[in-house]
Amino acid sequence: MPTVGDIGERGIIERMLKHITPMPDMPIPFWDDVMALSLGDGKAAVFNTDMLVWSTDIPPGMNHYQAARKAVVMNYSDLAAKGVQPQVFLSNLGLPRYTSIDHVEEMAKGFEAGVREYNSFVIGGDTNEAPDIIISGVAFGVAQKSTLIKRMGAKPGDILCTTAPFGDTASAFKILLENHKVPLKIRDKILESVYLPKARVKEGIALAKSGTTTSSMDSSDGLAISLYDLSRSSSVGFKVENLPITQEARTFAEIHGINPDNLALYGGEEYELVFTIDPARIDDANSALRKVGCILQVLGKATKKKDIILISGGIEKPIQRDGWDHFTGTS
Amino acid sequence: MPTVGDIGERGIIERMLKHITPMPDMPIPFWDDVMALSLGDGKAAVFNTDMLVWSTDIPPGMNHYQAARKAVVMNYSDLAAKGVQPQVFLSNLGLPRYTSIDHVEEMAKGFEAGVREYNSFVIGGDTNEAPDIIISGVAFGVAQKSTLIKRMGAKPGDILCTTAPFGDTASAFKILLENHKVPLKIRDKILESVYLPKARVKEGIALAKSGTTTSSMDSSDGLAISLYDLSRSSSVGFKVENLPITQEARTFAEIHGINPDNLALYGGEEYELVFTIDPARIDDANSALRKVGCILQVLGKATKKKDIILISGGIEKPIQRDGWDHFTGTS
Repeated sequence: MPTVGDIGERGIIERMLKHITPMPDMPIPFWDDVMALSLGDGKAAVFNTDMLVWSTDIPPGMNHYQAARKAVVMNYSDLAAKGVQPQVFLSNLGLPRYTSIDHVEEMAKGFEAGVREYNSFVIGGDTNEAPDIIISGVAFGVAQKSTLIKRMGAKPGDILCTTAPFGDTASAFKILLENHKVPLKIRDKILESVYLPKARVKEGIALAKSGTTTSSMDSSDGLAISLYDLSRSSSVGFKVENLPITQEARTFAEIHGINPDNLALYGGEEYELVFTIDPARIDDANSALRKVGCILQVLGKATKKKDIILISGGIEKPIQRDGWDHFTGTS
Repeated sequence: MPTVGDIGERGIIERMLKHITPMPDMPIPFWDDVMALSLGDGKAAVFNTDMLVWSTDIPPGMNHYQAARKAVVMNYSDLAAKGVQPQVFLSNLGLPRYTSIDHVEEMAKGFEAGVREYNSFVIGGDTNEAPDIIISGVAFGVAQKSTLIKRMGAKPGDILCTTAPFGDTASAFKILLENHKVPLKIRDKILESVYLPKARVKEGIALAKSGTTTSSMDSSDGLAISLYDLSRSSSVGFKVENLPITQEARTFAEIHGINPDNLALYGGEEYELVFTIDPARIDDANSALRKVGCILQVLGKATKKKDIILISGGIEKPIQRDGWDHFTGTS
């Protein structure tokens, strides 16, 4: 009998959706980053729910405070990608009986730190006995339906952008999971990308308000997967002519003889926004992001042809749909 | 170092809340059944999130369809107790890799059956790898703030009521977990109380609309625990003069020489409403429930003295705060 390990996350969701009646007038379709419900008066209730499982999702060295804070960030990031201000967070916590109270209090502090960073509140949750620490979070915010940015909407010619250069989290995972060495002076910044990730909330809201953005999602599964998901939803391809890579990831790649492009493309667990801008509005997008302290990164453009291509050193090569699938453990 | 097993669920929540800044103007305070956020215009967004963990929460013989449907019912029940119509459900699913796809599809059918029973929709969710099947659900609805029924609000003299007689689920657990025998003719009805529980959504809404109800919660932790929780929130006691017990539980109790009062008080996993009515409005409450096909059960009344007392066979005896604590495994 086939298992979820055989078909992976996308296969699971396809099988489940066969049995689900879609709600009429969904403000955001299935297969986007968030769920939404019309509230009338042009408003939508916008939700996200994501689960962290300690044994499979928490990297070595991450503490309970950081794990709980990250649960807020990962849930808020999906709202951010749609241009929605998160207003409240709910934490549904599964705990083994032997969990120390100190660790539970550290998690409460992590939730509080996460919500305060984004001007929001924890309004409750639930606790249950579980065989492992499970942090199931819910993010919620109300937004104008007309400003929601979907995954679907990129057109050929639109400019592909991100909110920052990439490569730190992939470098961090090589340090934490594969014992790669790294000079002390860049170690902290690289590890911080995994231990204390940031959600691009003010950036997402600035983009939504600017009306410049034709599609958007976050990069939590890695930049390559984000490009594939935007491509599928918008029926476009992408040509990446300038892959923005952090200085730390470049240094790390050089030390270990790794292609830095691969660190940037095939990471994950970073929460940058990946989005497309109407080319006539690129200056407005730039200026909207600058006002919230963010430097727009231009990667390339959306194409009619549905291939996803990197131009690096003058050579075109296909970007793989590579990233971590929770279930198959493969790309 | 103390663990969550030492202090139990209430202790865990107390420790966590020390670190959480309460949101100003919470329409529902902490320690109630749901969480809520003001939406303006007198409206509130109302949430609940509850987790089912297969190894600890699913009784023998319950299948995947029933477990998923129950996840909807248990999340909706808390909204029902506040008088709120659930509009949408989110399912956040943790799955071991070896889970069969057939079981995942059965769970999708269970979610769909649950939401359709209550005129609502599944609008999405998430899936993750986990060491056990974890069903973390979210229920959401919008309601008028002024009609929300809280746990706090019962006054001495108010009439204590429920939506049905009790005892079936405690009997079912004795059959399923302690191998008690039961005649075939009542077995199905008793087991159905556990396998296919119902949320009292239309009953909760009818009570909220009637304006008769001074406090309310559901009985998911058992009737005795509900009485203690209402007592603590409202600062009243209760005198139960008429404990409503199903005919099946009476028969079961007689066969096994069990006191039927204990089956009714110390069950759990039933989703009846436990509530108090302004004595001047009892006829209106009765009539509001009758219109939705429910027979109001009158148990007794709220008292100034904070004891929780059962009068049975003319003798007063204290009701214990007994029920299942997820963490300590004790009352």
